Amino acid sequence: MELHNQGRTKFMEFPYVSAPHKNLMVDLVSTVEARLDPQLFPCTLPHDVQSYHNHNGTSHASLHIRSGHNSSPIDFMLGSWIHCQLPTGGALNITSLSTYLNSSTDAPYFLIELIRSSPTSLVVILDLPPRKDLVLSPDYLKTFYEDTKLEAQRQLLEKVPEVRPYFSSSLYIRSVVSPTAIVVRIEAEAVERMEEIMGEHVHPVAKEVLRIWLEQCACVKREVDEAEKDYLQKRDKFVKTKTIEIDLATSLPRLFGQETADRVTAAIQEYFSS
Amino acid sequence: MELHNQGRTKFMEFPYVSAPHKNLMVDLVSTVEARLDPQLFPCTLPHDVQSYHNHNGTSHASLHIRSGHNSSPIDFMLGSWIHCQLPTGGALNITSLSTYLNSSTDAPYFLIELIRSSPTSLVVILDLPPRKDLVLSPDYLKTFYEDTKLEAQRQLLEKVPEVRPYFSSSLYIRSVVSPTAIVVRIEAEAVERMEEIMGEHVHPVAKEVLRIWLEQCACVKREVDEAEKDYLQKRDKFVKTKTIEIDLATSLPRLFGQETADRVTAAIQEYFSS
Repeated sequence: MELHNQGRTKFMEFPYVSAPHKNLMVDLVSTVEARLDPQLFPCTLPHDVQSYHNHNGTSHASLHIRSGHNSSPIDFMLGSWIHCQLPTGGALNITSLSTYLNSSTDAPYFLIELIRSSPTSLVVILDLPPRKDLVLSPDYLKTFYEDTKLEAQRQLLEKVPEVRPYFSSSLYIRSVVSPTAIVVRIEAEAVERMEEIMGEHVHPVAKEVLRIWLEQCACVKREVDEAEKDYLQKRDKFVKTKTIEIDLATSLPRLFGQETADRVTAAIQEYFSS
Repeated sequence: MELHNQGRTKFMEFPYVSAPHKNLMVDLVSTVEARLDPQLFPCTLPHDVQSYHNHNGTSHASLHIRSGHNSSPIDFMLGSWIHCQLPTGGALNITSLSTYLNSSTDAPYFLIELIRSSPTSLVVILDLPPRKDLVLSPDYLKTFYEDTKLEAQRQLLEKVPEVRPYFSSSLYIRSVVSPTAIVVRIEAEAVERMEEIMGEHVHPVAKEVLRIWLEQCACVKREVDEAEKDYLQKRDKFVKTKTIEIDLATSLPRLFGQETADRVTAAIQEYFSS
């Protein structure tokens, strides 16, 4: 528990991002924990995975993973932040929270990733990624994407003048997200305006998407037969493996050196491949 | 053959759209026919399906469908245009070309749809819709979407200042398209500028996407085993049924009256459900 508490405190500091950015992340993590805490084990990652950095101290990161109990539909929640100074003098900051479900339910995951490449430039990825081929699953599409009115949230953010659609360079990532995914780039003229957009637009939308996920995905009982369970396990594992490959395999060694990257990736893989 | 020739001549007139819009459609249809003609039967749709209109003559449409030979991977090509006067005094014009493959191959389809709600406002949907769940098929994604450099075509059009991403109101349609789909709205300040964009930007991009489809999808032999064939048949049929439901089921009766809508839908369904 000591390991958990120390790591959690460091993780929740989000020390390199703006106050509204930190507020948003702390609010989301706290909301997930408040609702799901009885179903979650403490974080048991080793100290040097909960917090790690590169040799010369220009890159610094925190990772917080909590598994769900066996009786819970929660597979695990994964929170992280990464900070790295850029050779240009600026810094790249990525904060993320994702919650994965196990195959006792086919409900979508929750995912938010905020990629801040400067104090006035932000990419937001906010989605409930589906766990089935939506083309073959119109009922699933209706239940989790139409009836939940997720599109209204996407449109709310789209109306902010500084918000533009963003296209991930990875076609695989584009395929993984849902048709109501919020995948946008925000370019503000001034730092104050970016903080205002974060607090007044990104925050409430992210909060509402998380509320929809908690109430209509994570906490709803679904009937899943054995064949579907096999399918979900196969597809989930496939997505997680590809995500590690795309997100971490090249960037972590570059930012933190091979040794640290190997240690962190191995720790994440334990959750992703179980 | 007489039925085919008469219908084709009318279809190729595209009488209600601008010269560059017509040029594009005629070019695409002719290119498909030039390459695939030996594999295609003539159009055997009845006269009153090849060309139809509503009672008071405010809506007018043409449909041209050619099946592929049994030995061909082409299932059928479907070209159409729809013109309808709007109560506001303007007109809605939709022109489209889609080419479907059968289950002897898993290669993507080709699809272009141009929806012109005024002489200065156009929605373009241009894509090679995949026939598999891309999340589970990274090799397929690589072969047909990465190696073909389709993304470069999407980016070419994205650079035109009047071009904005477009979000279909149907979440199902959003799910059907590929991660390199061109789904954009073009709003020009003047008719001349729209015609320039159509001729200088939309036309070459559409031509190139069709070339990629002809050379790297339609005319490439793929190994498809029996289980995959069953899967493709099921998924293809599902997509086509849903597409009719979304595209035609409500709009055709509204534009042409129930009787004509039933006649046209029944004719299309014969191809879509075989």
